[in-house]
Amino acid sequence: MTPIRFNLDPRTYKHLSVQVEGPTAKIIIKIPEDGGLREGYKLKLNSYDLGVDIELADATRRLRFEHPEVKAVCITSGQEGIFSAGANIFMLKQSEHAHKVNFCKFTNETRCSIEESHQDSNQYYLAAANGLASGGGYELCLACDEIHLIDDRNSAVSLPELPFLGVLPGTGGLTRLVDKRRIRRDLADAFSTVAEGVKGAKAVEWRLVDAVHSASTFQEKVEARLKEIAGEGNPHKGIKLDVLEGDYSENGAEYKYVDLKIDHDSRVATLELTGPSDADSEIPENAAELGCNWYGLRFWRELDDAILNLRNNFYEIGTVVISSSGSIENVAKLDTALADREDDWFVREVLVEMKRVLKRIDYTSRSFYTLIEPGSCFAGSLFEIALASDRIYMEDHEEEDNHIALTVLNDGALPMGNGRSRLATRFYYDEDAASQAQAAKGKPLTAQEAMALGLVTDIPDDIDWEDEVRIQIEERASFSPDALTGMEASLRFPGPETLETKIFSRLTAWQNWIFTRPNAVGERGALTMYGDVQKPEFDWRRV
Amino acid sequence: MTPIRFNLDPRTYKHLSVQVEGPTAKIIIKIPEDGGLREGYKLKLNSYDLGVDIELADATRRLRFEHPEVKAVCITSGQEGIFSAGANIFMLKQSEHAHKVNFCKFTNETRCSIEESHQDSNQYYLAAANGLASGGGYELCLACDEIHLIDDRNSAVSLPELPFLGVLPGTGGLTRLVDKRRIRRDLADAFSTVAEGVKGAKAVEWRLVDAVHSASTFQEKVEARLKEIAGEGNPHKGIKLDVLEGDYSENGAEYKYVDLKIDHDSRVATLELTGPSDADSEIPENAAELGCNWYGLRFWRELDDAILNLRNNFYEIGTVVISSSGSIENVAKLDTALADREDDWFVREVLVEMKRVLKRIDYTSRSFYTLIEPGSCFAGSLFEIALASDRIYMEDHEEEDNHIALTVLNDGALPMGNGRSRLATRFYYDEDAASQAQAAKGKPLTAQEAMALGLVTDIPDDIDWEDEVRIQIEERASFSPDALTGMEASLRFPGPETLETKIFSRLTAWQNWIFTRPNAVGERGALTMYGDVQKPEFDWRRV
Repeated sequence: MTPIRFNLDPRTYKHLSVQVEGPTAKIIIKIPEDGGLREGYKLKLNSYDLGVDIELADATRRLRFEHPEVKAVCITSGQEGIFSAGANIFMLKQSEHAHKVNFCKFTNETRCSIEESHQDSNQYYLAAANGLASGGGYELCLACDEIHLIDDRNSAVSLPELPFLGVLPGTGGLTRLVDKRRIRRDLADAFSTVAEGVKGAKAVEWRLVDAVHSASTFQEKVEARLKEIAGEGNPHKGIKLDVLEGDYSENGAEYKYVDLKIDHDSRVATLELTGPSDADSEIPENAAELGCNWYGLRFWRELDDAILNLRNNFYEIGTVVISSSGSIENVAKLDTALADREDDWFVREVLVEMKRVLKRIDYTSRSFYTLIEPGSCFAGSLFEIALASDRIYMEDHEEEDNHIALTVLNDGALPMGNGRSRLATRFYYDEDAASQAQAAKGKPLTAQEAMALGLVTDIPDDIDWEDEVRIQIEERASFSPDALTGMEASLRFPGPETLETKIFSRLTAWQNWIFTRPNAVGERGALTMYGDVQKPEFDWRRV
Repeated sequence: MTPIRFNLDPRTYKHLSVQVEGPTAKIIIKIPEDGGLREGYKLKLNSYDLGVDIELADATRRLRFEHPEVKAVCITSGQEGIFSAGANIFMLKQSEHAHKVNFCKFTNETRCSIEESHQDSNQYYLAAANGLASGGGYELCLACDEIHLIDDRNSAVSLPELPFLGVLPGTGGLTRLVDKRRIRRDLADAFSTVAEGVKGAKAVEWRLVDAVHSASTFQEKVEARLKEIAGEGNPHKGIKLDVLEGDYSENGAEYKYVDLKIDHDSRVATLELTGPSDADSEIPENAAELGCNWYGLRFWRELDDAILNLRNNFYEIGTVVISSSGSIENVAKLDTALADREDDWFVREVLVEMKRVLKRIDYTSRSFYTLIEPGSCFAGSLFEIALASDRIYMEDHEEEDNHIALTVLNDGALPMGNGRSRLATRFYYDEDAASQAQAAKGKPLTAQEAMALGLVTDIPDDIDWEDEVRIQIEERASFSPDALTGMEASLRFPGPETLETKIFSRLTAWQNWIFTRPNAVGERGALTMYGDVQKPEFDWRRV
């Protein structure tokens, strides 16, 4: 199959148009029926597939970097009478399980990033549902800060997945109903089983939307509200985000600072990271003049693209081995510069981007092993990548220098989806260990010091290193991929949960299960039979 | 198949012996190979099936009621060199999915109840692993307050599920490693992939156990520690728990205060509850003299048995309709009496029992609909059963009286697994609604008042009542049972999570998924191939 690319030129958008007017922007969804990423289904009624979501993720990122002046973003539809019918059912029917799950994961990440935009980037999202918002269409609304629904006697919001398809809403709908919109559980239950949804005043009363407006006033009211939110906008001037240059092949992708190499035989990928140069580590007075090709931003965009490429185009690669080369001093210098300048809008957006890429690793269902060898540069923000890994091996080399270092960016500037830093999560409840690690900040740490502080998993010496590491990686690659996915999802997020971790760690798991069950995808399952004149047949045993 | 009964006479235990010596007790596990609940597998190496767990649940409950003087409980093995090999693999291999999931759910509930015993009943559990504690065997240790492991060069603790079987530990193991025992995620990862486990000093260093003792001192050290914990014991004298009298049939079970009726055609069960009499609502000076046949305890034991019977013997019954008859004044009076006397050990144990039965409903994967009609008695603790339901319908009757009432027991004395009351969970973040409901405490509420307070889902009038309710129940029974399970699990627990809700809502979901995947249960899956000379074959696609 043609590989899926996440790296877009906005001039090639097929599904969205983005209109910026001073401090407000509109993302208008108008999906051509024949615009699917794959053959075999038609994107009717503004229903979407992964291709649409890749544009949406790109558009929201560009609004942050290219139009930081925008303070209010409206997501609306360019089709009459329909906002969006959600994920395309026929696409789901024909897709293999791994694609469905990866599709849902990416759409969830995009919804969460929209949700964070208000706090992270002072960009407030308003969903203007100028027609039926059904399933994933309503879930997109749920991810916005505020939902307006047209009151034209037809248009409703709905989650028809359970009654129509025998599955759950795929992008956090159930969790957002009760956790975000604080809808009472029995009303949420009633809403989620009524295929036709809820409209008008009742939609407001049940907290499903924030406001309804008659058809004749809808446009006007939404515009007024957008202006009200936007005010004078944010006092920033954006930069251009070039299309990322990647040299893609069936054996991986090579970028300037990141190199993804796939070994199909062993089912292991290596991800080689390059640290910043001395010059890369300085931030000028006008930070934005660094632009999109500056190491500090480009590295993370490349890493993001590499992870997405791996996830979506190389299902069989179960283990990712991460290494780096460069100077830990330069990484530390760059981290400090970023922290010092976090009030600058551009620097803040770079930090937000780093945070989101790191969370992408946390949520990726592959085993990550970081190898720390002489010549590597796992300090601060790059050490966060190690902390996002399932295991960290550091070579205890008798002759060559091998150090890691913590920096100010390990303190919580790059939180996980649970709202806490990776160090705090790592040392959950063990405050002593956390504060000892904290106290070691800024100082290069040897393998033995790192081990004593609990920062690495193991430190084989240079004689054992190669064998030891090879055996560990080979063993990992031999285990059941499903069991690894479940284990990693369970161990990566100890302690308190958030809406976001509930969506990724709990709701996703239920979906995974339901999406494989005969009651959904069997010969007479609800998803299989969708659109058929005959009704699905269920195995009634409750599990 | 022979129905499974949860209602035991301890004289018929096949797997456990319970020895009480003053303030300490020992639960000794010695499982006969031929003692399985079903044919077709041998319970070697102290491996268990549901039958063993039913005894364990019974034994721990009896220790609370019959031996409240006991302050330290030791769980140990009566077999040489083996503590327990966990859930029997061959039982799992031959069991249908619904049985496996229900088995895990019950064992999880028992583990959580052991875990709560310290705080609830001042009974402290110590696991004395006098041999290998593997898989579910180690998970049983994890549920105890403290773990001692014999250091004899052979005995280890281990979670071999992932490397050996391609599934996850089934009773909260992964979550307890990182959330309860605060084991670092990478060490937890390493431990969970090493089939042979970890022993000796390293087991202590990794926090997997609290202490190791050489074989020659093990017994003595454990005894000393038990004595130390127990001290003089608790100053209470127990009551006898009679075997519950239930009239079981293929159409349900009838008890004194609870009647479970199964309608196989509609796949709907009705659960009819009887409220307390006037005399039942009084608690004498010596509360324990009320004994096990007192309404206040017997009702909840009956309800528990009915739920377990439904769960495990009637898989196809997806909807449970709950009704009650009696006096709301008597329920309120009894609730007040219980709250007034909560310092009494017996009253406290009754409240603990109520709490646990209510949580059993929260965790049951069936749709619960409570119907409130004239003559019903849904006040306080009985209204908690309604609050545990997915929907609450109350008849708005023009002529006949129909009331509910909140009592002091709705305030948090009967918390959910998330640690909060059902009212606080229902009105998550909506403090106004929560305090309005609070303010209405003690006062009989009409259907319209209950509706205005958000305490019920809908209030059809007496003309529409029958049709409306019938349609809702019929519709529910027509939906995909898997999708309902996932939806209910997602909507019942908004807001903050706890170890317990993580185990039931998240880990369970991952297990459900992994247990249905070809990589586990397919023709060449790891669980299917266990014990075979050939290796399993995996579909390597990561999901």
